[in-house]
Amino acid sequence: MARLVMKFGGTSVANIERIRNVARHVKREIDAGHEVAVVVSAMSGKTNELVGWCRDASVLHDAREYDTVVASGEQVTSGLLAITLQDMGIPARSWQGWQIPIETDGAHGAARITGIDGSKIIQHFNERGEVAVVSGFQGIHRPTGRISTLGRGGSDTSAVALAAAIQADRCDIYTDVDGVYTTDPRIVPQARRLDRVSFEEMLEMASLGAKVLQVRSVELAMIHNVKTFVRSSFDDPADPKPGTLICDEEDIVEQQIITGIAYSKDEAQITLRRVADKPGVAAAIFGPLADASINVDMIIQVVSDDTVTTDITFTVPTADYERAKTILEGVRDRIGYASLQGATDVVKISAIGVGMRSHAGVAARAFRALAEKGINIRAITTSEIKFSLLIDAAYTELAVRTLHSLYGLDKAA
Amino acid sequence: MARLVMKFGGTSVANIERIRNVARHVKREIDAGHEVAVVVSAMSGKTNELVGWCRDASVLHDAREYDTVVASGEQVTSGLLAITLQDMGIPARSWQGWQIPIETDGAHGAARITGIDGSKIIQHFNERGEVAVVSGFQGIHRPTGRISTLGRGGSDTSAVALAAAIQADRCDIYTDVDGVYTTDPRIVPQARRLDRVSFEEMLEMASLGAKVLQVRSVELAMIHNVKTFVRSSFDDPADPKPGTLICDEEDIVEQQIITGIAYSKDEAQITLRRVADKPGVAAAIFGPLADASINVDMIIQVVSDDTVTTDITFTVPTADYERAKTILEGVRDRIGYASLQGATDVVKISAIGVGMRSHAGVAARAFRALAEKGINIRAITTSEIKFSLLIDAAYTELAVRTLHSLYGLDKAA
Repeated sequence: MARLVMKFGGTSVANIERIRNVARHVKREIDAGHEVAVVVSAMSGKTNELVGWCRDASVLHDAREYDTVVASGEQVTSGLLAITLQDMGIPARSWQGWQIPIETDGAHGAARITGIDGSKIIQHFNERGEVAVVSGFQGIHRPTGRISTLGRGGSDTSAVALAAAIQADRCDIYTDVDGVYTTDPRIVPQARRLDRVSFEEMLEMASLGAKVLQVRSVELAMIHNVKTFVRSSFDDPADPKPGTLICDEEDIVEQQIITGIAYSKDEAQITLRRVADKPGVAAAIFGPLADASINVDMIIQVVSDDTVTTDITFTVPTADYERAKTILEGVRDRIGYASLQGATDVVKISAIGVGMRSHAGVAARAFRALAEKGINIRAITTSEIKFSLLIDAAYTELAVRTLHSLYGLDKAA
Repeated sequence: MARLVMKFGGTSVANIERIRNVARHVKREIDAGHEVAVVVSAMSGKTNELVGWCRDASVLHDAREYDTVVASGEQVTSGLLAITLQDMGIPARSWQGWQIPIETDGAHGAARITGIDGSKIIQHFNERGEVAVVSGFQGIHRPTGRISTLGRGGSDTSAVALAAAIQADRCDIYTDVDGVYTTDPRIVPQARRLDRVSFEEMLEMASLGAKVLQVRSVELAMIHNVKTFVRSSFDDPADPKPGTLICDEEDIVEQQIITGIAYSKDEAQITLRRVADKPGVAAAIFGPLADASINVDMIIQVVSDDTVTTDITFTVPTADYERAKTILEGVRDRIGYASLQGATDVVKISAIGVGMRSHAGVAARAFRALAEKGINIRAITTSEIKFSLLIDAAYTELAVRTLHSLYGLDKAA
C-alpha cells in the first residue's frame, strides 16, 4: 500500500464525462489498495471566464476579491469529482484550501504556500478510507481569513506541496501529454519521451519555456524530494503508461550530457549603444527596471568600437518590452547612451543537462553547428547545467532541430 | 444614519452591467450616510447549471458536496460586486458564509440558520466604513466545517437573518417586481401594489403561492421584527420607489378586511370513497404519507350517502401526487376504502387578511360570488386570517378576478 497524490488539470476535468474518466484513474489506484488525495483544477475555460468578469467589473480589481471569485472554479470541480467517486462506490469528500487548511502568504493572485496541515486528510484516510478531493490553486491567508490563489498553474504546486505535507510516496501530475519530452514534439517529430529527468533539469526546462509543470512545483518537489510523475489523463485508465519520473540525479543511471532542448518566444531584446563605461552605470540601467518589477534575463556587455564606451544588450519578457523602453528613455540622461535598439522577433534556445557539469566544450559544439547553418547568435548565457542562445525567431525550428540532433536526442528511426 | 441590509436576487446580478446597477443602488444609500450590508444571490441561471452538473455526476449525490458546488455561485457574485463597488470608490469586501460565520444545522441542501455572528461586519463598518457584501443562500455547519446551503430562495432568509444579527434598521429585498400586489398582476390587471402588509398576511401569501419572498424569511422577519421592504432593482437607482413594507399589524393604519388573493397550482386532490368511519382511520391514511415526507394540506371529511362510511378528500403537492397514490393503494386493506379518486387539474385560491379576525361572514360572501359564476368548490379550509378554496384549474383567472373585485381590491379605474 502506498499513499499517492494525483493531480488533474483543467482539460482533464472539462466536463462531467471527463471527470468520470478522472474518477476511473482514481479507482484504479484505490483498487490497488492505495490511499489517494486528488488535486483538481477548474474546468478548462472556467478560470478565464471568471478572470474576464473581474476585469469587466474593474480594470484595477482588488486581488483579494479576484481570488474569491476565481477560486470558485476549483470548488466546483472538487465537489463534482467527490460526487462522481461516491457514485462509483468510492468514499470521497471535497476539501477547500481553507478547510484543510492550505496556508499562504498575503500576495493575493500569486500567493506562496507557507504551510499545509495534512493531519485531517490523513485522519480521514485512517478512519474512513476516504479519497480526499482537494481544490488546487487556492489557499487561505490566515491573518485576514481571506481566500488566496497561487497564480496560473498553481494546482501543480498545490499537488506537490500536499504530497510533502501528507508524506505521500508519489505525486502523479496528469496532463494532456504523456510525459516530458527531449523537446517540443510539435516542431521536432524525433523528440523522445524521457523516462526520467532530474529535478534540476526539470527546473531549468520549466523556467525556459517547457510548459509541462509550473516552476514553483518543481522547486518544491526538489526541496522535499517528492517523487513526481508527469503522465497523461487521456491514457486508458485501466492500463496507463508510466510517464516521466522527476527524481534525484542519483536515481538516473544512464545520464546523457544534454537531456533536453527548450525554447522561449517570450523574450525581447534591448541594446543600449555607447554607454559610458563608468562605475554605477549598470545600477542606473537595471535599477529602474527592477523597481518596475521587470525581470531582466540575459545580459551581455561588449566594448564599443570606440573603445571608451560599451554596448549593453539584455532581454526582458515580451509583455514588458514597451514598458522597459519607456523607462529607459526616461532615464537616458542619467545613464548617458547614444541610442536604444530593440527587437521582439527573437527566441531563446536552451540546452539543459546535468552532464554538462562534467563535460567541457558542450556549448562550443552548438556555436559551431549553428554557424554552419548560417544562424547568428545575438547573446549567450550559461549556467552549470544549461546554456541559452538568443537568435532570430525565424530560425527557431531549424536551431532546435539542429541541437536536438547534435546532442544525440533524436529517437531511433 | 441608519444601518441597512439590501438583498439582490439572481436576475438583478445576472451580468456585470446589472451588478453595476446594483452598485448604484448601494451607492445611493452610502451617499445618504448609511451603513450597508448587501446580500447577493448567484447570477441567474448559474445555480441551475451547477445543480445540473451535480445531477449529471450522480442521481443520488451527496448533499454536502452538492452544497459545496452550488454555493460557489454566490461566492462569485459577492466578489464581483465588491470589485464593482470599489471601482466606484466605495470601500467594500466580500464575506462568505464560513467567514462571518453564518452557522446552520447539518440539513445540507435545506439547512436552517442557527446563528449569525454579526460582530466582524459591525467592526468593519466602524473601523473601515466598508460595505459588507455577503454571499446569500450559504452558511457553514460548524461541527463538520462543511459548506451548507439554505435551499431555493434562501438568500431572502440570509438577508433577514443578517439584518437581525447586525441590528439593522431595515432590510430591503430587491426583486424584479416593485412590491407586493393584491394579487398576481399578470392575471388581474386591476391588481394594486400594497404600501404595507403585515408579517402574518405576508406569511400566508408566501405559503400560498405568491413567490415574492421565501416563507422562512418572513417568519424570521416576524420573529425578530425586522422592517422589511420588497422593492424593485430595476427602478432608477437615483430615484427608486419605496416598494411594500412588511411590518407589524399595528403599524398599518387603514386595514382592509382582505389584503390579497393568492393562488397555487401546485396542488393535487385525492379522494378516498367509503372509508370505514372508525377510530384510527385518519392515522392509517395520513401516517404513511407523513412517513414519506408528503405534506398534506386541505383535509375534508364528509359522511357518505350510506351514512356509515365517510368520504375523505385532501390535497398534496403535485410533485408528490403519484407517490401518494401508490402509498395509499399499498395500505388499502388496512384503511378499507371502496375507491381512490384523484385530480391534478385543480387550483387553490386563497384570500388573506388580518381583518377577517374581526369580521364575520367574509368567506360566505366568496362562496356566493363563486356560485353565481358557476364555479364549484371542491374543498374549503380556513384559518384565523385566511380561507382557501379548491376549484377546477380552468376557473383560476375567473375566480381570482371575482374575489379581487368582491373584496374591493381593484384599483380605481
